[in-house]
Amino acid sequence: MRSPQPHRSGGDIQQHFHSTVSVQKLKRFNSLILVFRFAAFCFSLASAVFMLTNSRGSDSLHWYNFDAFRYVFIANAIVAIYSLFEMAASVWEISRNATLFPEICQVWFDFGHDQVFAYLVMSANTAGTELARTLKDTCTNNKAFCVQSDIAIILGFAGFLFLSISSLFSGFRVVCFIINGSRFHV
Amino acid sequence: MRSPQPHRSGGDIQQHFHSTVSVQKLKRFNSLILVFRFAAFCFSLASAVFMLTNSRGSDSLHWYNFDAFRYVFIANAIVAIYSLFEMAASVWEISRNATLFPEICQVWFDFGHDQVFAYLVMSANTAGTELARTLKDTCTNNKAFCVQSDIAIILGFAGFLFLSISSLFSGFRVVCFIINGSRFHV
Repeated sequence: MRSPQPHRSGGDIQQHFHSTVSVQKLKRFNSLILVFRFAAFCFSLASAVFMLTNSRGSDSLHWYNFDAFRYVFIANAIVAIYSLFEMAASVWEISRNATLFPEICQVWFDFGHDQVFAYLVMSANTAGTELARTLKDTCTNNKAFCVQSDIAIILGFAGFLFLSISSLFSGFRVVCFIINGSRFHV
Repeated sequence: MRSPQPHRSGGDIQQHFHSTVSVQKLKRFNSLILVFRFAAFCFSLASAVFMLTNSRGSDSLHWYNFDAFRYVFIANAIVAIYSLFEMAASVWEISRNATLFPEICQVWFDFGHDQVFAYLVMSANTAGTELARTLKDTCTNNKAFCVQSDIAIILGFAGFLFLSISSLFSGFRVVCFIINGSRFHV
């Protein structure tokens, strides 16, 4: 009667050990995502702010007079707000060991938005680059405007880079969820 | 002595059954990828051909005089060639149950190139769109040139859509490989 006891207990210990390893691995994984989200947030915010303040004395040289620059500002602002929200969600998950939304919603929400916003911000920054190249010939009089636009676009591309890396991580979580029915991959 | 025999044999049958199911599922999965690769190939090729033939009588109205249109052509041509290669690799895998390159190289090659080329073609098509919008004001005399550019860009976006879906599938294969050490996910 007593012989199965140690075995069950050993199994419990082993299971508990595996579960602890799982939780710790997930925490490290989420901390890594948090770092990339933070980088994406910083660069996108900086890009949006640089574009927003890009107005010069002359009447026509305001960023909001150019469709592509408006697109750059809006896309980067959206990514900055989204990254801030995702950072909050990550901190919540790390501190409470539970997702903000139900797990299935959370993994799909993260991955779907990462993908769409990565393409959006890539597209916006390319449109901005194309416009900046077109303007190069006409803006010899006001170089500062062009330089500030270029900086905003470069910052936007850096934001895109970190967002696309985050999207790889969130994609990994989705596939773990599909295969294991949980975002834990061990 | 004989009692474990039926059990082992049952295990073998079960394992064989699982393995057959695995292979069949993988075949269906690869066939689905093949369909999306084919769609990406058709649209990218059509886009590249539409751009390549977009020259009008007037001296300046040739696609190769515009950087962004050259970018659209090159990106779509690259995606068309890549999709053709990937279709061949898929057909090889479906018919021989083995990948063209060693498995680990193949899954990372597919996923890496899908991601990079999806961003590339998205970026090219957006740059093309921005240029087409800039040209709108100046090309009232030669509407056909603008219309053909627009069609090439729209076809390019359709190609991007199918390539990005393929990239999701190849991402799934990479994660299966990381988790299970094999591209089989069951």
